[in-house]
Amino acid sequence: MVALCGGVGGAKLAFGLSRLLGDRLMLIVNTGDDFEHLGLSISPDIDTVLYTLSGLANRELGWGRQDESWNFMTALEAIGGETWFRLGDRDLALHVERTRRLRAGESLTEIVADFAIRFGISAQILPMCDDPIRTIVATPEGRLAFQRYFVEQRCAPRVTGIAFEGRHEARPSEKVLAALEASDIRAVIVCPSNPFLSIDPILAVPGIRERMEKAAAPVIAVSPIIGGKAVKGPTSKIMAELDMPATSETILRHYDGLLDGLVIDRTDAAESRALPGSVHVTDTLMKTDEDRVRLAGEVLAFADRLDAKAMDGSR
Amino acid sequence: MVALCGGVGGAKLAFGLSRLLGDRLMLIVNTGDDFEHLGLSISPDIDTVLYTLSGLANRELGWGRQDESWNFMTALEAIGGETWFRLGDRDLALHVERTRRLRAGESLTEIVADFAIRFGISAQILPMCDDPIRTIVATPEGRLAFQRYFVEQRCAPRVTGIAFEGRHEARPSEKVLAALEASDIRAVIVCPSNPFLSIDPILAVPGIRERMEKAAAPVIAVSPIIGGKAVKGPTSKIMAELDMPATSETILRHYDGLLDGLVIDRTDAAESRALPGSVHVTDTLMKTDEDRVRLAGEVLAFADRLDAKAMDGSR
Repeated sequence: MVALCGGVGGAKLAFGLSRLLGDRLMLIVNTGDDFEHLGLSISPDIDTVLYTLSGLANRELGWGRQDESWNFMTALEAIGGETWFRLGDRDLALHVERTRRLRAGESLTEIVADFAIRFGISAQILPMCDDPIRTIVATPEGRLAFQRYFVEQRCAPRVTGIAFEGRHEARPSEKVLAALEASDIRAVIVCPSNPFLSIDPILAVPGIRERMEKAAAPVIAVSPIIGGKAVKGPTSKIMAELDMPATSETILRHYDGLLDGLVIDRTDAAESRALPGSVHVTDTLMKTDEDRVRLAGEVLAFADRLDAKAMDGSR
Repeated sequence: MVALCGGVGGAKLAFGLSRLLGDRLMLIVNTGDDFEHLGLSISPDIDTVLYTLSGLANRELGWGRQDESWNFMTALEAIGGETWFRLGDRDLALHVERTRRLRAGESLTEIVADFAIRFGISAQILPMCDDPIRTIVATPEGRLAFQRYFVEQRCAPRVTGIAFEGRHEARPSEKVLAALEASDIRAVIVCPSNPFLSIDPILAVPGIRERMEKAAAPVIAVSPIIGGKAVKGPTSKIMAELDMPATSETILRHYDGLLDGLVIDRTDAAESRALPGSVHVTDTLMKTDEDRVRLAGEVLAFADRLDAKAMDGSR
């Protein structure tokens, strides 16, 4: 089983999937948000997945670690360091150790695999790419690196376009390609992350989209839209700015032929009749761990139904 | 007024001197202990001086900052990072910001000057050199980088020799040379730091020893030996290993003609008669801030007496 995910929303479903699948789950995680800050290599979505799957995520903040302290940040501010991107004392360990190991020549894939073991995570967490691909947000005031847009400017600027710098030079990750090419693959799940900022960077990695199209299993997305809004983050704001109605139909169109099935929220059940292709309607809001596991189970069952249908059709 | 110092013991006298002299004090601080750890540039003696002079030093530990927390270290250990050199959460801010600025091309001298201002320190803290000079300890088991010897192995290996790697390639710091060449210099104080590990690296910087010999003011050392022992650290252990009696006379000989005067502890008053040159006997143990300021005042008065005598002699 392969799932694509970005940060918070996607990581919740990934948590549910990991509970059901253990080491049979391979997560391909967005690294378009990665950046260098204070001289440290920071991978926000990877870390959110590490913290969420290990149960260490900070649920109040929605990012970072639980039981966090901020003494580093306070001391940094006192000596005039940059504080717009907040790094907790415990969280900092991942950034310092990752940076050290990257400089020593290890790949992000190797480093994250070790971190996952240390965090007691059995799912495989695969960075979408070991080469840098950087999400750039175009705004009327100019181009912004992702974290400047997302954290420093709190998604305030109007988005006029999104680009993925470095995508053409990037070599795909062997492990990611192998995961998508596996003959025993059961499904490819696109988690309810931001399609533009979290999933599109993954699809921009050379070879990934093509392998998803050819995958020997159904590709299913869980729509991040509930009742015309995203649960969290700027998805619906960006859709408005890009002149797209904030509906699950838009999400389906956006993935442009890639999907075999779409999971949408009960709130939008009326939409399902107008949607082309297979749709599963359920509660997609994940408030508790039980919600996450239940939704993951429904997505897997939906995938199995689609797979059986496809095999019927091929007979 | 110029003073040479290393870490804890020297920094105590530097604190006293800074209270009396404010911005008229220039401190030349050992950077032979500096090293790269976890990808961060660490300057232990510089930081001890910053923390001591600003009143932020941790008096229980004898190193690092007061009111420190250790959440970074705990989290680092959990992901398999190296923990033999302990970095507190607040302390880490100096290392991360220093490393970032060094990589951006700033000199350690510039960075430390800014930090000192941020810490409210009026004395000038000058790294002995902006180029790397690294103290290496020779032992029967091989050569050890200073912090491996000092922190990881807790000074246990027997010292057979000490070297300062990079000294011949190092360019001296303009500010350090200018401080020693000043015509209005009142004294050059060698603080009661470890002569072998804290002061010798400073004297190994091209041009420093020569300028101290020519300085237009008396050079005075405060002996780190009290009753045959050093207050703290491995000074007397190293002296035994190098077959030197742990006495102030040995210290005087070690500096080999560089000193115009030596300050020794009352415990060793009997030694003073046998010592060549000018000696001032007083209480050199600094337990309180008052001790530090009192000793600093006595050192300054001793310097002035030596200066007057020298001027008498030259008439």
